[in-house]
Amino acid sequence: MLIVMKPGVTQSEIEHVLEKIKHLGFCTKILINSSQTSIDITDGKGSIDAAIFENLTGVAETVRPQNPYKLASSQTLRKKSVVLIGNERIGGDELTIIGGVCAVETREQVFNIAETVKKSGAKFFRGGAFKPRTSPYAFQGLGEEGLRILAEVRSHFNLHIVTEAMDNEQVELVEKYADIIQIGTRNMQNFSLLKRVGKSKLPILLKRGMSATLEEFLLAAEYIMAEGNENVILCERGIRTFSNHARNTLDLSIIPAVQKLSHLPIIVDPSHGTGKNFMVTPMAMASVAAGADGLLIEVHPSPENALSDGAQALYPEQFLELVKQVKVIHEVLSPVTV
Amino acid sequence: MLIVMKPGVTQSEIEHVLEKIKHLGFCTKILINSSQTSIDITDGKGSIDAAIFENLTGVAETVRPQNPYKLASSQTLRKKSVVLIGNERIGGDELTIIGGVCAVETREQVFNIAETVKKSGAKFFRGGAFKPRTSPYAFQGLGEEGLRILAEVRSHFNLHIVTEAMDNEQVELVEKYADIIQIGTRNMQNFSLLKRVGKSKLPILLKRGMSATLEEFLLAAEYIMAEGNENVILCERGIRTFSNHARNTLDLSIIPAVQKLSHLPIIVDPSHGTGKNFMVTPMAMASVAAGADGLLIEVHPSPENALSDGAQALYPEQFLELVKQVKVIHEVLSPVTV
Amino acid sequence: MLIVMKPGVTQSEIEHVLEKIKHLGFCTKILINSSQTSIDITDGKGSIDAAIFENLTGVAETVRPQNPYKLASSQTLRKKSVVLIGNERIGGDELTIIGGVCAVETREQVFNIAETVKKSGAKFFRGGAFKPRTSPYAFQGLGEEGLRILAEVRSHFNLHIVTEAMDNEQVELVEKYADIIQIGTRNMQNFSLLKRVGKSKLPILLKRGMSATLEEFLLAAEYIMAEGNENVILCERGIRTFSNHARNTLDLSIIPAVQKLSHLPIIVDPSHGTGKNFMVTPMAMASVAAGADGLLIEVHPSPENALSDGAQALYPEQFLELVKQVKVIHEVLSPVTV
Amino acid sequence: MLIVMKPGVTQSEIEHVLEKIKHLGFCTKILINSSQTSIDITDGKGSIDAAIFENLTGVAETVRPQNPYKLASSQTLRKKSVVLIGNERIGGDELTIIGGVCAVETREQVFNIAETVKKSGAKFFRGGAFKPRTSPYAFQGLGEEGLRILAEVRSHFNLHIVTEAMDNEQVELVEKYADIIQIGTRNMQNFSLLKRVGKSKLPILLKRGMSATLEEFLLAAEYIMAEGNENVILCERGIRTFSNHARNTLDLSIIPAVQKLSHLPIIVDPSHGTGKNFMVTPMAMASVAAGADGLLIEVHPSPENALSDGAQALYPEQFLELVKQVKVIHEVLSPVTV
Repeated sequence: MLIVMKPGVTQSEIEHVLEKIKHLGFCTKILINSSQTSIDITDGKGSIDAAIFENLTGVAETVRPQNPYKLASSQTLRKKSVVLIGNERIGGDELTIIGGVCAVETREQVFNIAETVKKSGAKFFRGGAFKPRTSPYAFQGLGEEGLRILAEVRSHFNLHIVTEAMDNEQVELVEKYADIIQIGTRNMQNFSLLKRVGKSKLPILLKRGMSATLEEFLLAAEYIMAEGNENVILCERGIRTFSNHARNTLDLSIIPAVQKLSHLPIIVDPSHGTGKNFMVTPMAMASVAAGADGLLIEVHPSPENALSDGAQALYPEQFLELVKQVKVIHEVLSPVTV
Repeated sequence: MLIVMKPGVTQSEIEHVLEKIKHLGFCTKILINSSQTSIDITDGKGSIDAAIFENLTGVAETVRPQNPYKLASSQTLRKKSVVLIGNERIGGDELTIIGGVCAVETREQVFNIAETVKKSGAKFFRGGAFKPRTSPYAFQGLGEEGLRILAEVRSHFNLHIVTEAMDNEQVELVEKYADIIQIGTRNMQNFSLLKRVGKSKLPILLKRGMSATLEEFLLAAEYIMAEGNENVILCERGIRTFSNHARNTLDLSIIPAVQKLSHLPIIVDPSHGTGKNFMVTPMAMASVAAGADGLLIEVHPSPENALSDGAQALYPEQFLELVKQVKVIHEVLSPVTV
Repeated sequence: MLIVMKPGVTQSEIEHVLEKIKHLGFCTKILINSSQTSIDITDGKGSIDAAIFENLTGVAETVRPQNPYKLASSQTLRKKSVVLIGNERIGGDELTIIGGVCAVETREQVFNIAETVKKSGAKFFRGGAFKPRTSPYAFQGLGEEGLRILAEVRSHFNLHIVTEAMDNEQVELVEKYADIIQIGTRNMQNFSLLKRVGKSKLPILLKRGMSATLEEFLLAAEYIMAEGNENVILCERGIRTFSNHARNTLDLSIIPAVQKLSHLPIIVDPSHGTGKNFMVTPMAMASVAAGADGLLIEVHPSPENALSDGAQALYPEQFLELVKQVKVIHEVLSPVTV
Repeated sequence: MLIVMKPGVTQSEIEHVLEKIKHLGFCTKILINSSQTSIDITDGKGSIDAAIFENLTGVAETVRPQNPYKLASSQTLRKKSVVLIGNERIGGDELTIIGGVCAVETREQVFNIAETVKKSGAKFFRGGAFKPRTSPYAFQGLGEEGLRILAEVRSHFNLHIVTEAMDNEQVELVEKYADIIQIGTRNMQNFSLLKRVGKSKLPILLKRGMSATLEEFLLAAEYIMAEGNENVILCERGIRTFSNHARNTLDLSIIPAVQKLSHLPIIVDPSHGTGKNFMVTPMAMASVAAGADGLLIEVHPSPENALSDGAQALYPEQFLELVKQVKVIHEVLSPVTV
């Protein structure tokens, strides 16, 4: 059971509740985020009567979460969360576009694409300095040098930077240079890393694991939030199935599912989610029509090297056209979920 | 290799080509549909030179299909196919809405929903008289009695009827009463049934198998087309994966994939594709935004019996609202795939 | 609720029970197989007290099946079923080996392999006369001519014949020539076909659908049994997953699962289940060690045409070696499941 | 291309080869393990002729790996690897049994089970001090206190200890107390962690990721080996599929597949691989029959708390019986793969 305290609750009101619970022989855990304080009653013998607490001063309500995640649950926080990054908002009324490159290779490449991203009206730039690669022999990213290039993009184009960190050391570096820390699909259940970024001041873009259920996805967010960082943005990026016409199967029904169960914003990455250039725009439009809060799109710096279908990145002009089209979809949407 | 003949080719021109091939020691198969005649060169010793045929009168071009399906391939027929049903068109510029009930239970129930479907502006009504049920003890449908009720709906509301057939005997009955024969997901590779409906005069709505690849899906269509029935409408209805927040995983990236590889129209069934009432509208909108030619939507006759999320059918007012919203999406779409 | 009648129950005892149920306002369905008659209480208002029936003459017991399948359930029939084919038994103490070719191509090919199968000590020969092929342009089998060749194998080698039927017409032909009717993986939920073979006098080898759950698998068996044919042999043949080192993922844990929930025998097809020659023997051994009642193995007539890993069929000498090895495993097994 | 050097190659022979490659404009990476030194030719313009190197002194052969993993490949090292732990060998002729508890809870619990494990003749004990838990609110393990208990088991029972580490700090602690470091399924692509344990002196038990392909699995091993730690033991523990009769789908065909492509030993965890007590023994037997080098089995300290099927752990007497039975299977196996 969760005892949700009123906004502006005092320390002594909290302590009064805690004492009551302890007296009944139960353990507690305090959950605090910017909008509210809750007391979670964990282990103990027998059951406990919610009525005991409902009239205590400072108590807003008692909740018996149906779900194992509490902070991420729409039961706990009914209003949709909005994540603030500078003056920008993810999860609000505006559609968020994050454009960029897969890996930071050179300053030129990155500036080239950043110009296109800026031109589209997007406010976020994404680029990888540390790359999780299936093979140890593949390019592992430029490391801190890559982060410095991204920081230049930030100051030059006034774009917010999203970049991945794969371990504690990288988190510290990313915190120095970027605005949003991305946790990649392969690390969605790297619990040590989740706990570390849960202590970060930066918002976290959490990608769904390749074979993660919705519950596991929200519990990964819960790991971050339980450490005090409530600024989590979920990202659907395709799951692994038998279906082989695309590299992954983009599971868009997770958008209404997340919106029902959680208050967290959710964006979609149709570039990794399909792995095919010609599918990115249709799937981006589908994502927005399904209610996604934003998109993460890869742009390719040198079209001439990416002629095959195999290439997932869009050419700059395709990206500009995509942004135009998804905005049209976003504008005609009336709120569809209740 | 496929030798595509010109429109208006004469019988003697065809025979001339056939003789030439026979003379070279190869076998042939003639593929005819309303828009064209092709000669498929099948077995034989060694390779064959396309140039031999390209200047013969009556020959439009020679094609070496990269894909195992020929008639369904966009290489063979470059223009998108439009399936005509009376004055209606599936696969053209207009969005097709097929509304209806899962199983025909009573005349009242069906007329009740048909009224809603008609009111929405949809031109197609769907209802099951023969039901493929996982359990032998579950309701198997009203049979011919159900078909008669559907035929009444047709004449009373001027709606075209879509209904499933599961074996040869049922196909004959459905041909008597309905306008489009549905082949269900469990029968996508029932090759005897595919051959039988390939000889039907009615268009076929072919649902994707629960674990079918795109290639298997198009080859199932090819089975029907190879028998002479070119009026195949594909339908994505969700695939089976580990993901458990919806009953199936709606695989919308198959829409651009089909549009690249085939000329056949494709519609989406978000009702079976999600199994959850609250996901139907967002996924319907996503389907249209991704470029689907139409939607197959279930409506529930008695909302009071369908209060849980478990119910996939929409209430009448939800259905009317859905149709309004997807039309708005459809209108703002500019052609997105090239 | 299921009312299981005693062996040797009389018609009037049955009618007495039926009347009682009708009087209480409930509907019934009578389920008869060779070993017992049961009365299934289906729809009706309210609940019904089992005690009413337990003391009626002719009633053995009342069962509230936890599972939607009744005849296939180990609750209904606690002893393992043994399917008799001539003097042979499938599901008993002996390990059943079914060897053979994928498709019947020529009399020579089939006789060649039948000799090897006979030599191994196996009692069953398998060959396809009607082939379910993904492409309409692929070889569809020799049809009745193939069945005649199989019948010759039967009389010449004294081997029992297992062969697939894909529709009602084929079932009639197979009944004329063979001993066991195979229902292929693509037809596991072809309910019309299941009902038809449920009326056959021949035992049915039912292959698991590529994406069928255990419950769906047992309900497909139930379709056959509900029509009166209790001689169903289940066959695991690999499921469709993301895993790509084998053509399918052989799901051997279904063996103990079937043995817990059902009395039906289960065999394994490691040839289709892996699609790779070098995996067949290890997976055959694993199947037997896990408790399978038998194996279905493909043998290739002309090794020189099947050199690549891609070929799933074993060479004759590999097959003979496999049979020797699995028998050793089978012999050392003490009953492992309780 | 990989240039494999002869055993006993001298430093100057190696340098001579390196210079030659550099002169041709290509980059290199030196791969050293206890049995051999290889030079990997990585990037460079154009192609390179193997013949140039084949006659240089110190060169054994040149290999063009068909697979992206090199050190893990059976092409590079043709003899099966044997991992030594004290006097014990994993991957040799003897079957390895690792028994133990899921999480270390108390000294009593662990000693209780260790006694059973010792009694069975097993040489390895497994217990978790750091637990990767889906929920942040679930028990996360005793940490270093748990490791100390495990170290007591080691000295008291003379059992080798296997335990999981989830980040760099935990690796350092595990190195102090244990004999084999386990990398869990959720960390199979935690590349920072793989690099860290690649520098450890302890052997690594690498569990397959829940949705990892065989290639990804071997490349994860390659990450560890590329850092110099060649003592990697692979572990199949079930993959995630739609199939729901077991918690995971144990994919045993990976055993012959690994044995074909790699020289590394592979063991199986049927406890996590099925999640059901009654499936553990049949699947353990199947694993051994398929050629697994060993088993990882969970034993439950207090049977009375684990009566349901849901519990995956075996009771002590079931474990003792399992060990007896799998040994019988292992003894009758003749080498089945060539």
